[in-house]
Amino acid sequence: MTIREKSLQLHEQWHGKIEVTSRVSIETTEDLSLAYTPGVAEPCLAIQKDYEKSFSLTRRSNLVAVITDGTAVLGLGDIGPEAGMPVMEGKCALFKEFADVDAFPLCVRSKDVDEIVDTVYRISGSFGGINLEDISAPRCFEIERRLKELCDIPVFHDDQHGTAIVVAAALLNALKVVGKTKEQIRVVINGAGSAGIAIAKHLLQIGIQDLTMVDRFGILYDGAPENNEAQQELAQRTNLSQKHGTLADALKGADVFIGVSAPNIVTEDMIKSMASDPIVFPMANPTPEIMPDLAKKAGARVVGTGRSDFPNQINNVMAFPGVFRGALDCRAKDINEEMKMAASVALAGLVKEEELNEEHILPLATDKRIGKVVAEAVAEAARRSGVARI
Amino acid sequence: MTIREKSLQLHEQWHGKIEVTSRVSIETTEDLSLAYTPGVAEPCLAIQKDYEKSFSLTRRSNLVAVITDGTAVLGLGDIGPEAGMPVMEGKCALFKEFADVDAFPLCVRSKDVDEIVDTVYRISGSFGGINLEDISAPRCFEIERRLKELCDIPVFHDDQHGTAIVVAAALLNALKVVGKTKEQIRVVINGAGSAGIAIAKHLLQIGIQDLTMVDRFGILYDGAPENNEAQQELAQRTNLSQKHGTLADALKGADVFIGVSAPNIVTEDMIKSMASDPIVFPMANPTPEIMPDLAKKAGARVVGTGRSDFPNQINNVMAFPGVFRGALDCRAKDINEEMKMAASVALAGLVKEEELNEEHILPLATDKRIGKVVAEAVAEAARRSGVARI
Repeated sequence: MTIREKSLQLHEQWHGKIEVTSRVSIETTEDLSLAYTPGVAEPCLAIQKDYEKSFSLTRRSNLVAVITDGTAVLGLGDIGPEAGMPVMEGKCALFKEFADVDAFPLCVRSKDVDEIVDTVYRISGSFGGINLEDISAPRCFEIERRLKELCDIPVFHDDQHGTAIVVAAALLNALKVVGKTKEQIRVVINGAGSAGIAIAKHLLQIGIQDLTMVDRFGILYDGAPENNEAQQELAQRTNLSQKHGTLADALKGADVFIGVSAPNIVTEDMIKSMASDPIVFPMANPTPEIMPDLAKKAGARVVGTGRSDFPNQINNVMAFPGVFRGALDCRAKDINEEMKMAASVALAGLVKEEELNEEHILPLATDKRIGKVVAEAVAEAARRSGVARI
Repeated sequence: MTIREKSLQLHEQWHGKIEVTSRVSIETTEDLSLAYTPGVAEPCLAIQKDYEKSFSLTRRSNLVAVITDGTAVLGLGDIGPEAGMPVMEGKCALFKEFADVDAFPLCVRSKDVDEIVDTVYRISGSFGGINLEDISAPRCFEIERRLKELCDIPVFHDDQHGTAIVVAAALLNALKVVGKTKEQIRVVINGAGSAGIAIAKHLLQIGIQDLTMVDRFGILYDGAPENNEAQQELAQRTNLSQKHGTLADALKGADVFIGVSAPNIVTEDMIKSMASDPIVFPMANPTPEIMPDLAKKAGARVVGTGRSDFPNQINNVMAFPGVFRGALDCRAKDINEEMKMAASVALAGLVKEEELNEEHILPLATDKRIGKVVAEAVAEAARRSGVARI
């Protein structure tokens, strides 16, 4: 039986991967009077008087909404809101298992940006944070931007920033393995959707200077007619020599390839055309842009994929639980660049110098130390950058 | 320390009365592949192909949203969405404790009927049922009606129907105690908000024929200028002799008083003016329309209140957990009149004839038999009336 068949069978048995449980026991009439009426009037009035108390007197301070519209679920595309829910529930289970964050999945029956923003904003008073998930680009950029402006709690699009945080951590450690610095390398990212764009922005932020984006129309350049707003903005900060051309053109002499695109589109020849000791992260799922053995054969020094059956799995489960744990712990009003950078650095730091090698640039995705270490770094960065409330 | 002070203190310690937990353990890379990517793609595709599978492959089949806009919280009025959340969380804890229903609280930051309807409809694909709560009248009627039309899952406004179910159960048993039948009695309901109107409709449904509604403008009559739509509709089916007058006028010769209004507005003289063996349910909370000892002194034979410190507590915790358990168990598309009637009859049936007396017309609110017995009756009624899907 394949993993997918076995997963379906387990889902039929599980009847849901999350559960809402009661933290109070209600056996007697007095229990009822304290947890419910008439006693409950008092915490209600306390919140009415002081909105901040909504965080301490309800579950809000530990609670994140995981929200999708079902338009870009895994690599499956627009499968509809309800069909996206097994992923959202999985995410919620991971939040709990890896960082003791209560997360609740909600799918929104609309593809309209205004409607999604309105809906999420209106229920945001029930939560301490909003995790957007599997919403197609470029709509996801506007939805995230507007929700960040509207909401007084952190909003985070995991497909963008979770992925970017883990890729950056992987890259920082891979650079140590090959003995290069982030200032001297040329990076090519293939795929200019939500993940690719977020990775690019995050890498620029951590100090990568020479970056080229490629999508199905070729190298991204300033003024290309196909550019959406987010791509156009990036085109002005990347591809410094304003080259036009294909992925093969872009890869000539490049130090790093990062793929968030499609299966099998990178050839051995393209890897051979890269600079010495190339770092190759073909992360298309489940079939990478080039299979790790082929990439290695063609000279790749460090290879990381999204898959758990090869070394160096780059999986955003290493980011989102700890990021939200940190943000909730300090009541951050935002998850900003400083916090994301701190998460990348903390995650990279979990592999000690002496453990670091071609096959080991990241901890295992299931390593239970990650959530705590990332959370501490994120909360500290939030305090330092002035977005922490406590 | 009062109950309310103690409740506030406990809420400060609890950090929320509900919790979202994981039903799957994720220790190994294989666990991750099965509960999350890549395995989870398979249940997603199964739901995309067959929408009905969203109920079995996620938690949806056991999950109810408890939704408020914070406009009519307990007797506190419009205290705002976030301030209503301790009540909603309490409700969710009761759902779990009394019927093993997973319930999740959401407050909506809007008072606009269209916006609330849109918001709730758009997230309804995440749930198996919608419980509306503490939304002010008359907005609650339109919100419920429109959501019932839009949603393919049951929608239930507990302040209306939960209360009505338990009042009817109490009345059925009280009539046995005083030896009257529902066809021969005259009932007066004081308070024509959401609870009063729902009680009236439900009592008409179970066979009460002579009913008079009273509100702060006096006896409700056909064409009264103060009537809202729901009140006008009821005015045509109640107050058969189309009397005008006060609560005192209405109570003269009445067999039953039901109050969902304001403290201390019923006098001993009014009770004395009622028919023999009057049944008196002054349910204003926390201070009833008349205190039970005064009502008794004035001749009331059976007295029931909303309070746990007097006999015959009429509390809708005896209804909503079992009603939704039953509706979820048979995948009902609606909670209809037949199901509500079945709930009243099943609840009344929990007090055996030989146990029945003036001080014991209902089981204790904390009696854990209630959820199951009500659920079975509700599911059976759903199947009988053709709204059950399984």
